[in-house]
Amino acid sequence: MFSDDQVENIHATALRVLSELGIRVLDPDARAMLVADGATLHGDDLLRFDADRIEALVALAPRHFELYGADDRRSVSIGGKHLAFLPVGGPPNVSDRIRGRRPGTLADLSELVRLAQSFDVIHALGPSVEPQDVDLAIRHLRTTEVLLTQSDKAPFVFARGDDQVRDCLEMVRLARGLDARTMSERPVCYTVINTNSPRQLDVAMCRGIIQFARAGQVVIVTPFTLSGAMAPVTIAGALALQHAEALAGIALAQLARPGAPVVYGAFTPNVDMKSGSPAFGTPEFVKGALGAGQLARRLGLPWRGSSPTAANAPDAQASSETLMSAWGSLLGGVNVMLHSAGWLEGGLTASLEKFILDIEALQIFAELCHPLPASDDDIGFGAIRDVAPGGHFFSVQHTLERYATAFHVPLVADWRNHGQWTEAGARRADERATDIWQATLERFEAPGLSSDRAAALTCFVERRVIEGGARPI
Amino acid sequence: MFSDDQVENIHATALRVLSELGIRVLDPDARAMLVADGATLHGDDLLRFDADRIEALVALAPRHFELYGADDRRSVSIGGKHLAFLPVGGPPNVSDRIRGRRPGTLADLSELVRLAQSFDVIHALGPSVEPQDVDLAIRHLRTTEVLLTQSDKAPFVFARGDDQVRDCLEMVRLARGLDARTMSERPVCYTVINTNSPRQLDVAMCRGIIQFARAGQVVIVTPFTLSGAMAPVTIAGALALQHAEALAGIALAQLARPGAPVVYGAFTPNVDMKSGSPAFGTPEFVKGALGAGQLARRLGLPWRGSSPTAANAPDAQASSETLMSAWGSLLGGVNVMLHSAGWLEGGLTASLEKFILDIEALQIFAELCHPLPASDDDIGFGAIRDVAPGGHFFSVQHTLERYATAFHVPLVADWRNHGQWTEAGARRADERATDIWQATLERFEAPGLSSDRAAALTCFVERRVIEGGARPI
Repeated sequence: MFSDDQVENIHATALRVLSELGIRVLDPDARAMLVADGATLHGDDLLRFDADRIEALVALAPRHFELYGADDRRSVSIGGKHLAFLPVGGPPNVSDRIRGRRPGTLADLSELVRLAQSFDVIHALGPSVEPQDVDLAIRHLRTTEVLLTQSDKAPFVFARGDDQVRDCLEMVRLARGLDARTMSERPVCYTVINTNSPRQLDVAMCRGIIQFARAGQVVIVTPFTLSGAMAPVTIAGALALQHAEALAGIALAQLARPGAPVVYGAFTPNVDMKSGSPAFGTPEFVKGALGAGQLARRLGLPWRGSSPTAANAPDAQASSETLMSAWGSLLGGVNVMLHSAGWLEGGLTASLEKFILDIEALQIFAELCHPLPASDDDIGFGAIRDVAPGGHFFSVQHTLERYATAFHVPLVADWRNHGQWTEAGARRADERATDIWQATLERFEAPGLSSDRAAALTCFVERRVIEGGARPI
Repeated sequence: MFSDDQVENIHATALRVLSELGIRVLDPDARAMLVADGATLHGDDLLRFDADRIEALVALAPRHFELYGADDRRSVSIGGKHLAFLPVGGPPNVSDRIRGRRPGTLADLSELVRLAQSFDVIHALGPSVEPQDVDLAIRHLRTTEVLLTQSDKAPFVFARGDDQVRDCLEMVRLARGLDARTMSERPVCYTVINTNSPRQLDVAMCRGIIQFARAGQVVIVTPFTLSGAMAPVTIAGALALQHAEALAGIALAQLARPGAPVVYGAFTPNVDMKSGSPAFGTPEFVKGALGAGQLARRLGLPWRGSSPTAANAPDAQASSETLMSAWGSLLGGVNVMLHSAGWLEGGLTASLEKFILDIEALQIFAELCHPLPASDDDIGFGAIRDVAPGGHFFSVQHTLERYATAFHVPLVADWRNHGQWTEAGARRADERATDIWQATLERFEAPGLSSDRAAALTCFVERRVIEGGARPI
């Protein structure tokens, strides 16, 4: 998207933002750490940074690392040429065609985690819906319990204050059967830090960066730089602000612990000037994703993108916007694609039908990562010779040897002709998706958690519940 | 998709198919021309070719040419770095949410041509639905009349025999006000030649190639090499067969007239082993499109791809498959994307809603062809400076100067929040698309055709109708 000069210019502008304008850092400890490191304080909480020092800190971050699940099969490589798909995170609501749209509950979260567990193309978990039926002080406990018992993939943990994070990290440690020292060298969970754009890091986000970095766990620093609203109306400008804020967050992580695993996050949609809503899958979103990839590569860091949509239903708009967003991220060389299954309504709803429709696309993307066989035998002069002009290839040896596995098998797509499709009820893709999530949940079996680890986890959770849990910041 | 060696190997295999196996050529004149040029006849109609001669003929084709509409604004560059979107062609049926699915009529064709005329992102016309209410002998006259009177974009002409083609070319000549000699040097219409895979060219296709080439009009040679059915079950093999057949067709065009404008056509979906239907938007389709682009560039010729779907309704499957197909073609460097608006049911239906939904995607693709502004002023350090941490960019000068044109405006997407969307009727994208095609048709005004040209066209058509028209081959 950008020339090398333009990338350098955006990078330099971001450094100017950090050194000449500064970032408000609301957490006193983070401020103290940064001032001790050479940042200058202006007023109560505005910090300006030395550009060279920022670059030196960011250079400490690893270019590539593993995010470990319960066993080796669930380990995910983050960075380089690797690509990981993560499901929707954060919506307050959930929806499906059977039960409608409603505030999320713990049972809904459990269903979404089970779906994420059921498809190998999802590489780690997300906080797929906010369980609003659980009290805020114990929600982190119940959420993490679901993630650790219904799946063996690496979980997400919200950065909502020291006490909650400490609880969650302890739960992950117990579920994985690790001692504290081993876990501090082994990334087994991740959080997402959204800066409060423009140019602000609140207490919870600062605490999360520091705490995750010190624990050796993964921090995805993602400014939410909505172009035209919380960021410049130009995509290049919004990316410059994104870059500045990401640099500040990553530098803080490296200051907390040199070499801590971090991901450069990009989430730069443009505002819809009519409604004030974020727009996704737009040309600007695609271009922004391509540009974000260049900026991440400029730093040599793994980067996180996403495949969102603003659509309110799992319809043609939803699929079209999601695929535009996804292709933009993929062509930008994304390493971690968040929100890649189940996202609807600009992130306000997790849709079970959309989850399934997205899995279809992700499975195709995964298949596209495989090369196309093109040996002499694949090119198949002999097969062409064996079929007379006007004939067919159904019964030649070349076909018989391969047909069972030659082609990708779809999950949702119905390829029957119109007559057969009509006889079968003329059901749209989102209606067929309902069948699929229902059947998937019906046959779901939770992965085994050994009885001692399960007991330790339960024991910890129930004790912390009795103690009253921990309020979020 | 392929290494250079693999491309060479596929190209060499295609030449071996032509020289060692041969192609059935069912038209006696075409056979005679090819035999006179050195091809050898085996049995009644199987021709084997000299590989070097095929390459020499294909090398005569232009790498780039203009396809002219009624005026300069409607001229389309074909080849090189240029990209043209053409609407759906060929379905027997038409469908929309108001009138349902039905056999196409001349009135339906007229509506689809008017839609194609109404959106600048469509660069030339297609035979968007077969008008089955018109007798076969005069259908070509009525079809071409609609294309020439309802649009000023370059029309498509079916190759259904010498007499029909002669009629249609004369109609285009009259509508464009050209003398015969000028028209023979000026591509103003195009046809698509589908070989009868495997390894067969029927009479109508041969006649079409020869007649269009001699008239200096555009021939898109597109083998329909359905992998696993009429072509090898491997994509590499299906492409080798596609390549052989395309080379034969293009060579025949160049023999008919050296330098005739041709396009290398690729249409290589894979068969669904369950239903026997072609599948689109699959990983195999995307990979095939990437490979086809490499083969076209090996020849230095413009290439034609497409963005089809097998979905039976304009739903999430339709958009998902169409976008996968489209991105595959675009990433393959496609020059002419056929069937890019309105295609449904594997090409058996032209859908008015799908037409509008596809236009939305094409407009985004067109916008993606523009670079992203990234001057110092676009990067906007000043704008970032002017907004305090935690503030917003809505009212800064940088935004006010740009907001009106900063972001792409969608056609169908509804970005309102769920509450507003629900209050407005909770309408899916395909329902909103109905409004748009209706409004577009309502405000349609046909482009002016000067009264003398219109009179000449009408006079010719009515005379030919009285004469009984011409039967198709």
